[in-house]
Amino acid sequence: MKVARFQFGSTIDYGIVEDERVIPREVLEKALRRDLPEEIVGFISDPSLTSLVEEETPLLDASKQLLTLNDVKLLAPIQNPPKIICLGLNYADHAAEQNLQPPQEPVIFLKPRTAISGPYDDIVYPSIVKELDYEGELAVVIGTKAKRVEPDKVMEHVFGFTVFNDVSARDIQFRDRQWTRGKSFDTFAPIGPWVVSKSQVGDYNNLKITTRVNGEVRQNSTTSLMYLKVPEIVSSMSQVMTLEPGDIIATGTPSGVGFAIKPKPKFLSVGEVVEVEIQNIGAIRNRVVAESSSS
Amino acid sequence: MKVARFQFGSTIDYGIVEDERVIPREVLEKALRRDLPEEIVGFISDPSLTSLVEEETPLLDASKQLLTLNDVKLLAPIQNPPKIICLGLNYADHAAEQNLQPPQEPVIFLKPRTAISGPYDDIVYPSIVKELDYEGELAVVIGTKAKRVEPDKVMEHVFGFTVFNDVSARDIQFRDRQWTRGKSFDTFAPIGPWVVSKSQVGDYNNLKITTRVNGEVRQNSTTSLMYLKVPEIVSSMSQVMTLEPGDIIATGTPSGVGFAIKPKPKFLSVGEVVEVEIQNIGAIRNRVVAESSSS
Repeated sequence: MKVARFQFGSTIDYGIVEDERVIPREVLEKALRRDLPEEIVGFISDPSLTSLVEEETPLLDASKQLLTLNDVKLLAPIQNPPKIICLGLNYADHAAEQNLQPPQEPVIFLKPRTAISGPYDDIVYPSIVKELDYEGELAVVIGTKAKRVEPDKVMEHVFGFTVFNDVSARDIQFRDRQWTRGKSFDTFAPIGPWVVSKSQVGDYNNLKITTRVNGEVRQNSTTSLMYLKVPEIVSSMSQVMTLEPGDIIATGTPSGVGFAIKPKPKFLSVGEVVEVEIQNIGAIRNRVVAESSSS
Repeated sequence: MKVARFQFGSTIDYGIVEDERVIPREVLEKALRRDLPEEIVGFISDPSLTSLVEEETPLLDASKQLLTLNDVKLLAPIQNPPKIICLGLNYADHAAEQNLQPPQEPVIFLKPRTAISGPYDDIVYPSIVKELDYEGELAVVIGTKAKRVEPDKVMEHVFGFTVFNDVSARDIQFRDRQWTRGKSFDTFAPIGPWVVSKSQVGDYNNLKITTRVNGEVRQNSTTSLMYLKVPEIVSSMSQVMTLEPGDIIATGTPSGVGFAIKPKPKFLSVGEVVEVEIQNIGAIRNRVVAESSSS
């Protein structure tokens, strides 16, 4: 099941995406003869409800009241996540391109929710930034509250997976040494295009992940190169903080980020389009635009 | 005006504190003959409303339906801030005790909202942590949305100030080099006891700030030693991210933190009580307790 948030005319809602069809919440409500939570986080945090919808959706009459992806604008699937946790240096190949070893325990930073941006929205290049870069990442979406849960049980608390771009201002990130500020600008967390439930994503330990800039492949890896695997990451985070429904955990980026390209870094420029694609999930595609003096 | 959140019996609400009296929201509503927002963040984000309450509260008949501080349990004034931004190394004396210079631009990290804890709640000492420490800080509470606002205008967007303890696991903070994980444990952000509106706090550039552990003074400084001042900090953050109502910005800690005490660090132990007090605001007081195996 793919759960998406979308705008249709002036309505913002969530629903299920099947191939090119979008099945809005109210159609699901009529078909299932029950109310669904008004917000997507309420929906994904109820395992009995998501199981029901996952079973029943394929049986729905495809002819009725359905939209297609062309009819709607897809939005960030989670607009206001309680937390956005991001791992650093979690791919062997990305650590190697910086002559580093992946750390034994997750090194993290948090992004603010104001950085969240839609799957096809623009990335705004701030005027105070000089070196803009991308990081394609697999992101975990938490379904139910978890505190101090062991790796073999923790996947019960994960609803699914989505695609994430950890957009980074390298000049600020490296000047500060603490990574947070350079990664916290508005629009620096494009996400989507939907959340794929864990039962449908296949082997999350072996998904192809590709980042392209204006069509040129920059990152071309697989989640099998992750050093700490998804259950270890989520469990480890739950030892520190209570994970809440709608929390997003970005699991680190593979090699090929712009600043590490030899012989010369390739940073992003205004007008370029960055695409991050993950097998069995989909792709997000974001154009870099200049900061307007008014916005 | 001091705005507090409190529990009285099974009711959780917000209200105004005057001396020992607590004036709950519903008493204010009757006196003012108008409804107030259900959540404290809705209230502090409405400058016309907060001005009205600030003017009218002293005129209320003190005899009617009032509680005292003894009747209620004070809670964290903001339970779910959209963001908790913390500055590092912003006091000249604290930078000096680490042989560092304060940075020209704010070095920041974010804490997760799950770290928030009440003004008199326990700090839970996690079993995986070896070196627990305190950092007493003045925190700014944002009233209205702000993006790219200059220092001379930015205080219009600040509602007020509160007391904050940036509790830190030094072993994890320094091992990771990125500070976030060691500062993100549940209960590592005690805050309160209330938010004092900016008009009542006096000169926020010159408030005494004191931290005591079991009554022993450990930090004894003044906000006049802050390197970047409050308007510069808030303006600078607004250049990076949209500030939202209820956002908390902790402005850094003065000298005297446990790990920097000579000749030998003094970390916190189970059973100790940490108190952070700021002139014209008040004090928060939190006991360190062991993590129970069940919680």
